Amino acid sequence: MRNYQQLKGMVAAAFTPMTADGNVNLPAIDAYADWIATSQLEGIFVCGTTGESLSLTTEERKSILEKWIKAADHRYKVIAHVGSNSLMEAIDLAHHAVEQGADAIAAMAPSFFKPGSVKELIDFFTPIAHAAEELPFYYYNMPSMTGISLSVAEFLHEGKKVMPNLVGCKFTHNNLMEMGECLALDNGAFEILHGYDEILITGLAFGATAGVGSTYNYLPEVYRGIFKAMEEGDIRKARELQMRSIDIVKIIIKYGGGVRGGKAIMNLIGIDCGPCRLPIPPVSEEEYVQLRKDLIEFGFSL
Amino acid sequence: MRNYQQLKGMVAAAFTPMTADGNVNLPAIDAYADWIATSQLEGIFVCGTTGESLSLTTEERKSILEKWIKAADHRYKVIAHVGSNSLMEAIDLAHHAVEQGADAIAAMAPSFFKPGSVKELIDFFTPIAHAAEELPFYYYNMPSMTGISLSVAEFLHEGKKVMPNLVGCKFTHNNLMEMGECLALDNGAFEILHGYDEILITGLAFGATAGVGSTYNYLPEVYRGIFKAMEEGDIRKARELQMRSIDIVKIIIKYGGGVRGGKAIMNLIGIDCGPCRLPIPPVSEEEYVQLRKDLIEFGFSL
Amino acid sequence: MRNYQQLKGMVAAAFTPMTADGNVNLPAIDAYADWIATSQLEGIFVCGTTGESLSLTTEERKSILEKWIKAADHRYKVIAHVGSNSLMEAIDLAHHAVEQGADAIAAMAPSFFKPGSVKELIDFFTPIAHAAEELPFYYYNMPSMTGISLSVAEFLHEGKKVMPNLVGCKFTHNNLMEMGECLALDNGAFEILHGYDEILITGLAFGATAGVGSTYNYLPEVYRGIFKAMEEGDIRKARELQMRSIDIVKIIIKYGGGVRGGKAIMNLIGIDCGPCRLPIPPVSEEEYVQLRKDLIEFGFSL
Amino acid sequence: MRNYQQLKGMVAAAFTPMTADGNVNLPAIDAYADWIATSQLEGIFVCGTTGESLSLTTEERKSILEKWIKAADHRYKVIAHVGSNSLMEAIDLAHHAVEQGADAIAAMAPSFFKPGSVKELIDFFTPIAHAAEELPFYYYNMPSMTGISLSVAEFLHEGKKVMPNLVGCKFTHNNLMEMGECLALDNGAFEILHGYDEILITGLAFGATAGVGSTYNYLPEVYRGIFKAMEEGDIRKARELQMRSIDIVKIIIKYGGGVRGGKAIMNLIGIDCGPCRLPIPPVSEEEYVQLRKDLIEFGFSL
Repeated sequence: MRNYQQLKGMVAAAFTPMTADGNVNLPAIDAYADWIATSQLEGIFVCGTTGESLSLTTEERKSILEKWIKAADHRYKVIAHVGSNSLMEAIDLAHHAVEQGADAIAAMAPSFFKPGSVKELIDFFTPIAHAAEELPFYYYNMPSMTGISLSVAEFLHEGKKVMPNLVGCKFTHNNLMEMGECLALDNGAFEILHGYDEILITGLAFGATAGVGSTYNYLPEVYRGIFKAMEEGDIRKARELQMRSIDIVKIIIKYGGGVRGGKAIMNLIGIDCGPCRLPIPPVSEEEYVQLRKDLIEFGFSL
Repeated sequence: MRNYQQLKGMVAAAFTPMTADGNVNLPAIDAYADWIATSQLEGIFVCGTTGESLSLTTEERKSILEKWIKAADHRYKVIAHVGSNSLMEAIDLAHHAVEQGADAIAAMAPSFFKPGSVKELIDFFTPIAHAAEELPFYYYNMPSMTGISLSVAEFLHEGKKVMPNLVGCKFTHNNLMEMGECLALDNGAFEILHGYDEILITGLAFGATAGVGSTYNYLPEVYRGIFKAMEEGDIRKARELQMRSIDIVKIIIKYGGGVRGGKAIMNLIGIDCGPCRLPIPPVSEEEYVQLRKDLIEFGFSL
Repeated sequence: MRNYQQLKGMVAAAFTPMTADGNVNLPAIDAYADWIATSQLEGIFVCGTTGESLSLTTEERKSILEKWIKAADHRYKVIAHVGSNSLMEAIDLAHHAVEQGADAIAAMAPSFFKPGSVKELIDFFTPIAHAAEELPFYYYNMPSMTGISLSVAEFLHEGKKVMPNLVGCKFTHNNLMEMGECLALDNGAFEILHGYDEILITGLAFGATAGVGSTYNYLPEVYRGIFKAMEEGDIRKARELQMRSIDIVKIIIKYGGGVRGGKAIMNLIGIDCGPCRLPIPPVSEEEYVQLRKDLIEFGFSL
Repeated sequence: MRNYQQLKGMVAAAFTPMTADGNVNLPAIDAYADWIATSQLEGIFVCGTTGESLSLTTEERKSILEKWIKAADHRYKVIAHVGSNSLMEAIDLAHHAVEQGADAIAAMAPSFFKPGSVKELIDFFTPIAHAAEELPFYYYNMPSMTGISLSVAEFLHEGKKVMPNLVGCKFTHNNLMEMGECLALDNGAFEILHGYDEILITGLAFGATAGVGSTYNYLPEVYRGIFKAMEEGDIRKARELQMRSIDIVKIIIKYGGGVRGGKAIMNLIGIDCGPCRLPIPPVSEEEYVQLRKDLIEFGFSL
């Protein structure tokens, strides 16, 4: 069996830089990619939810991935999110990820026609995983966005039989019991990438060794501290840092959540990401003024 | 102000014919299009939910629409569903619908990033409507699939101010009070296309004058009877026919609902539609045997 | 088999009059009961949702029922709602309804521990129905309040085998297809009492012959008109009256819905019902001023 | 300001022993109470969800509490759950808890008419808390049962102003970010009792110092081990024990969850708790045979 390299530590969920008129701003990825390297992150997760995934056209998703791979220049890993409501698009994106040299692929479940069983979920993903059999494949579990709450443990265990490159799961859900089960499954055979930044310590308590988050983009030192403290058994220290993380998440919630609020923070700290594409509404000047105040109060030097 | 032609009566929601390997079967549309003409329907609704909309690639959606327009050959109207999670794709599809000579466009709300207010819904649709300003634009309201339950009446009233071609709504929801409000809105300024076949009499009771349905494809005479009886005030007759409709809907529910079960019925009555694309699972031979029995018991001559 | 008398026409869902300090105001029921007689309604539904059912103690529910039976004085029927999360309380209330001479009982499903199947629902109701075997028993189906959406048709068909006095259902749900099924079930063996006032014409279109509603309390002539018009096949007339009903429902929604807003309307038209019990908050003076305006604009003479 | 004694460590959520005919079995509480003492638990939570709370009559709830206080005999604390859909019943139960000498009261939100804001929640609870002002009052937050997801932090902060005996919250929810916020609120002014046994380590990671659980009844040593390991920073050890807890929770889920499955386990380990009251269905003999096997495989000596 092929040996797939594992993810450890912190992977940033990439925002997709856009111009004022709502088009993708590929050149802006250069500076952003350097920032990720400077932040010493282990990887970047491209065109996932934070990257406005399904708001992009297939061609845009391809050009964004190509740009990230080039800009990252092997300084950290690049994971390509290839999920789509259209099986054909997802397969196309998986082929493309292989061709371009991505380090791994990930895919969320289709959410328009919803798979009704683990078997249906496996049947949907199998041709996608096969299209990128050279790369590790992570199932991207995020019930809050997809509306799909099928058993992840059963999916991993059964799915592995037909998708040898299924190595794990990006687990973006409050169901920590299930995360615990997935981590213990088959003697720890699967990688579980923790997804909710604001409760990272709970995933680490259960044994997760990597996380994918959007707030890692602008608070890398806080999360690095959480990883370190939990490794050393210093729960009190980890908890204090986690409360910092919760404070920033409370701020982004005020501004519409991790995608809209997060992009605005990136713009304020000097990494040009522009606005979101509709239906996510633009951030007004008044909001930017208030957000700047909130961030300074939080401790950013702007 | 431009005068847009209205829809009256029955519009079939088109299935998208596919081959056994899950690809779109364009040639099969010819016979299907003739069947619609023979059934004396008023129109066809292309690449909506029944047509597996978001399971298709953008290129496939274009080619399917082109084929339908050619095959319909002006015998009935062709409405192009252009909704997408990607604003750019929806605009692209709207332009394409105009170029190809569709009679109207319709679009469902984006369902991945969900608009949080009527204003956000209007902002999303405005560039799409403008891209097809020559054509009437119907908002496709279907909370069960999109998860979006914003006020349709407010959307129509406010949206009309910025989208002059917004003429109405395909209303696929159990909220009949809201449908009543929409029909009465602004002195009946908007067309409301009834969407749930199994309760058509309730929409007609509230004054709807057109419907878009997937079961119209194989039971046109039942629905024509309902329209006629309600127009003549023969509620008892309409109710009896509606119970026939409910009986067929109970059958398709047994086989996974209107798309999966409906396509299987089409295949059995001789209009080749093939299987659905994943994640909708294929219909097994055992299921086909049972479905044939159910349909014969219902009254079909197979 | 015993022959249970049927309900026809309009049954008002009774508000429970309270004093300013939140206690039940039994004496106020006298004038209220006369008003129902004057309005020529067919019955009153006591201590249901509109009557703030589960906000009342068991003793209060008993005393309210006794008072209504006395005050109604056989001028119309009195239906006792005996549903409770506690089986023992529901049985106790059912016995009490028989002893006091109620004309029928009704019960909603328990909503704290939710029955997970029709069988469990039947098992729960059987001892309750048996405790009042002399009286017709109506299942009170209202998924919006109970969170229980089990098949009503299956419940009626199977439940009848063990509860001979199960005569039908108060159907308070937007699922009109299911209502149609229930009305057609076993050759029309069951009475279906339509529950959502704002869409009464849809229930009548499907063949319902009775309704239970809270707005019947203050708009009896509108609903009488709807019943009459639908019987005569005058759908246009029925629809016009239904729009009146929708207008009043839009008003009560502004004031917190049918219980809170409805009680306030009763107070304004001269039937003292007082405030609701917490957690339903009291109506402020400002709200009363505005509501009076809304009602005058609607057409009430206040 | 009065100084309320705090809860630390493990509080068992008490099952309510019943006889085969579904009546409360008060005498059985004697042996159960001794078992809790032997297990060295810090307290017992009476007539909460595990105790089938709302399935009981008010009189039953009173007699159960009286019995527990007598049987516990000051060996551990007795917390009285007084929540009800009826404000009057809840106040009555709160008065009763004081008179009988309970150590604290707790109350869940009303779930039939749902409070729509934190203010409404506070207004509902204020007279209940005042009725037991001598005792600490815990808000019992459990959205999965009540359907109420209002901000707990806001409730605690604002509620404290009008309910001086509001000392904290039983937090039975997967929203760990909110739990973190509550623990940090007002410099740690509130006690947060962790509610979901299967993820206890996540609550402890966030700093909770007490838990209320139903599986503490039959696995006390596992949870004691988790508390100890987390205190010592031995996350690996805590995690291993948590996986034991998850394994038992997976078993009870097979048998209908913590109340139904848990009562069956109690019966098998020799603490007579009898069946649940309807609508929770009885456990069949076949299920008992299988459950015994599952427990032996888990490691119980039966």
